[in-house]
Amino acid sequence: MKLWRTALLLLLLSTPSLALQRAPATDAAAGVRAVWAAQEDAWNRGDLEGYMVGYWKSPDLTFFSNGDATHGWQATFDRYRTKYQGGKNQMGKLDFPQLETVVLGADAALVRGRWHLKMPDGKEYAGMTTVIFRKFPEGWRIVHDHSSSAPTP
Amino acid sequence: MKLWRTALLLLLLSTPSLALQRAPATDAAAGVRAVWAAQEDAWNRGDLEGYMVGYWKSPDLTFFSNGDATHGWQATFDRYRTKYQGGKNQMGKLDFPQLETVVLGADAALVRGRWHLKMPDGKEYAGMTTVIFRKFPEGWRIVHDHSSSAPTP
Repeated sequence: MKLWRTALLLLLLSTPSLALQRAPATDAAAGVRAVWAAQEDAWNRGDLEGYMVGYWKSPDLTFFSNGDATHGWQATFDRYRTKYQGGKNQMGKLDFPQLETVVLGADAALVRGRWHLKMPDGKEYAGMTTVIFRKFPEGWRIVHDHSSSAPTP
Repeated sequence: MKLWRTALLLLLLSTPSLALQRAPATDAAAGVRAVWAAQEDAWNRGDLEGYMVGYWKSPDLTFFSNGDATHGWQATFDRYRTKYQGGKNQMGKLDFPQLETVVLGADAALVRGRWHLKMPDGKEYAGMTTVIFRKFPEGWRIVHDHSSSAPTP
């Protein structure tokens, strides 16, 4: 009877945790992809503020390009604004011809792949992107973005 | 007595797991830094094979540069060999002026920062690096490396 009770207790303690270990991988991938899709949609309707929602609103957000590091959400927003808005700069149409999501844990995921941007004047830009998402109370957010550019042809 | 036994069992079950939750963050950071230091040392003595030990020996390893993706350990090794060995190519001296390790889970960590390479002819190259480590039975290994280059001055 004592053994039986102990065994039941162990079973009750172990079964939910096994279920919990499997659930986050699916949830994480779906959560991350939803944020990604929302960002892509926002970009393609020219909504930079909407695009920025996917980024962790923190001074600890990091954004790497080919040779530069930008620190913080505000500086990342300012960088995008300078590069893609105002004056004759435009946002163009963004897509990701290759993209892969790798769940790294219950609250961490990697998205890696190729980005491609077509501007209204027909010019095209492309490169590689590596993005780390973490899960916060407000949802999955990018904590680190490394997006590099191929040389322009 | 029954309650006491149950409480003791719960305590025994929960205490080690709390300890285990804290331990990996320190272990992970130390493990990752040790692999990184070994790679840097190997590079700086011209030992490309030794440098490659830090990479996951798998066809699923990914290496991104500015605009290109390389898939698999062997292709990554071949890319390094072509770029930095044979003929007049040399490996030079590598250092990382800025580097930060972020533990993402018990078996995942991010290292991000700036790389700098000085060649024997005095030419210098630099850029940003984002590296994902995972823990395998053989130790911490890089599963994804995104190293981009600033335009050469």
